[in-house]
Amino acid sequence: METGVRSNSVPAMMRRSAGEAEAARTNTNQVMVGKVPIGGGAAIAVQSMLTTRTTDVEACLTQIDELAALDCEIIRVAIPSAEALLGFAEICERSPLPIVADIHFDHRLALEAVNRGAAKLRINPGNIGSLDKVDAIIDAAGEAGIPIRVGVNAGSLAHEFQLRQDLTQVEKLVASAVTFVEHFEERGFSQVVLSAKAHDVRTTVDTYRLLSKRLPTIPLHLGVTEAGTLLQGTVKSAVGMGILLMEGIGDTFRVSLTADVKDEVLVAWELLAACGLRRRTPELVSCPTCGRCQVDLVSLANEVQQRLQSVRKPLSVAVMGCVVNGPGEAAEADVGVACGRGSGAIFSQGSVLYTVPEERIIEALFAEIDKL
Amino acid sequence: METGVRSNSVPAMMRRSAGEAEAARTNTNQVMVGKVPIGGGAAIAVQSMLTTRTTDVEACLTQIDELAALDCEIIRVAIPSAEALLGFAEICERSPLPIVADIHFDHRLALEAVNRGAAKLRINPGNIGSLDKVDAIIDAAGEAGIPIRVGVNAGSLAHEFQLRQDLTQVEKLVASAVTFVEHFEERGFSQVVLSAKAHDVRTTVDTYRLLSKRLPTIPLHLGVTEAGTLLQGTVKSAVGMGILLMEGIGDTFRVSLTADVKDEVLVAWELLAACGLRRRTPELVSCPTCGRCQVDLVSLANEVQQRLQSVRKPLSVAVMGCVVNGPGEAAEADVGVACGRGSGAIFSQGSVLYTVPEERIIEALFAEIDKL
Repeated sequence: METGVRSNSVPAMMRRSAGEAEAARTNTNQVMVGKVPIGGGAAIAVQSMLTTRTTDVEACLTQIDELAALDCEIIRVAIPSAEALLGFAEICERSPLPIVADIHFDHRLALEAVNRGAAKLRINPGNIGSLDKVDAIIDAAGEAGIPIRVGVNAGSLAHEFQLRQDLTQVEKLVASAVTFVEHFEERGFSQVVLSAKAHDVRTTVDTYRLLSKRLPTIPLHLGVTEAGTLLQGTVKSAVGMGILLMEGIGDTFRVSLTADVKDEVLVAWELLAACGLRRRTPELVSCPTCGRCQVDLVSLANEVQQRLQSVRKPLSVAVMGCVVNGPGEAAEADVGVACGRGSGAIFSQGSVLYTVPEERIIEALFAEIDKL
Repeated sequence: METGVRSNSVPAMMRRSAGEAEAARTNTNQVMVGKVPIGGGAAIAVQSMLTTRTTDVEACLTQIDELAALDCEIIRVAIPSAEALLGFAEICERSPLPIVADIHFDHRLALEAVNRGAAKLRINPGNIGSLDKVDAIIDAAGEAGIPIRVGVNAGSLAHEFQLRQDLTQVEKLVASAVTFVEHFEERGFSQVVLSAKAHDVRTTVDTYRLLSKRLPTIPLHLGVTEAGTLLQGTVKSAVGMGILLMEGIGDTFRVSLTADVKDEVLVAWELLAACGLRRRTPELVSCPTCGRCQVDLVSLANEVQQRLQSVRKPLSVAVMGCVVNGPGEAAEADVGVACGRGSGAIFSQGSVLYTVPEERIIEALFAEIDKL
């Protein structure tokens, strides 16, 4: 039950929650996407998908670099046509991150993507046309030694499942996914990752819960699909995937946003941090400001957060606006400030060090962060 | 288990999910904050807190109007000093929304706030100084017939609980809250709302889960405290409160963000919508765009979302970028567009109506929305 207790001997970020709230990670198979492991106890991998076209190699590589700088770990690209294959080999060759080829309808595109260096395929076997064509893809990936994500989606369920009036939407998604995975296994292919997405949060949560019971060894790629624009999509993704991740379900995920692709990665990392699973920058604790606050706390907190993006130390930092919770939270954090009237009391390692005027708060905070 | 099934006879927004995923709302007491009910099966009320000072009455009323326009339902203000009481009566008198007085340390401020028209008090009994002073507040609120939120916070736990090394942080928060609530009940006061917040998501979730078991009839005010700046705070709030709301825990809540106060209310509504509990505007389903997309989908989706803010019909609207999931999702929504090369196929009520060039998509979508 305990999760929030601090001990003075360990930096806050390294402390682990324990007890019943810490769901055991599902014991899934591990597959490799390039050098990135998915499943089998590996860290949950962060994915995103390029919005650029593979015909523009330089644009794709620039976007990959931007995403890599935010610690995105796996990149997916759409291959909607033979034309899209043109730059694909060069992108796979030059990309610092492994590339997943996303293919619908035409199995020949998948076969060609394997030849050109895809680190993984993503297909929906329900729209490939025939089982023979799916099998050709399975065999090609098997020979190349790369995994395939079987991606089922509520918006593109195969007709045979869509028409089943005896099944709920969740059951249709799960039945479709299980049928495909069993076929892959019967064909001797074991490098399967599975997703079954819906845009409704509850449907998504229930589908993945059921999948994790029905297919406990298959690594799961989480997602709330078509989640919407930045704020709506962030909230839907955080609720849906947050519930699953906190229950130990999910081995990799993408936050799907109708927004700048970099936001997908930023939100993904915020989600892993909120769930206490992974963290790429120090933790910021900052209060929501109110009529008690006598400094410009929103600007202060935003600037601190911006500067923390380049700090790779396992720290917690508190930026608090007043004396109600301020001293308590500042003392709990590794470094903190509790603001008063145009000034801030600087804390480090649980003790107040000195008070500085408002304009020197950030300088003082980062001086203390540097010392740790 | 079923949640996502659509039937053609009911607008998508009005459909209810059913089965095990639909957690029963906790059967809590109902209290009234002005005309807004909290608990006892009432709709989950959206709160925010002013960042303006009560000494500037007009600034407060302007901010209240801004929040009311976004369907915020309860307003909290900080009363940190006798000076802060000066404009308080006028704010209570003129506000269209009920006002909660947030008071720490000095019980006389609470007594005076009751006299001046507070619709509710929020105190942390642990920092009021003595039980006699807490009792004076309880009695004043009881005579005025207004509720009190007992707000316990990890950053300001009373020393007697903070020092208990036999308890986890969750247990300290719950023990502190239970002790206070029992005291209020012994004094014959039944209009209690309870919060016990931490900035750590798991601690918050576990604390509220335990509180809902230990005090099943007390309405709970949810919150992840000091959640941080816009993106981090939104994700932490959505994960923590999303888990609780989906389990049927929580009767009212505030999203605490170090950001523009209006964002707190926007995120709150996104959260209620994501959990399938309440919705103030039509649902937008929009895909995250990729290399397949041949229109400017991010701009399109943002403009549709902006214009949907003033639509009060119970509709779902899909804005989809390509043929993979586009036609399926557009057909499932009440109104939708599935985009192709510089054009969009307009759907209504499950059928494609016609195709328009990209620049006429929004006009066509809203023409169809107007017809429903």
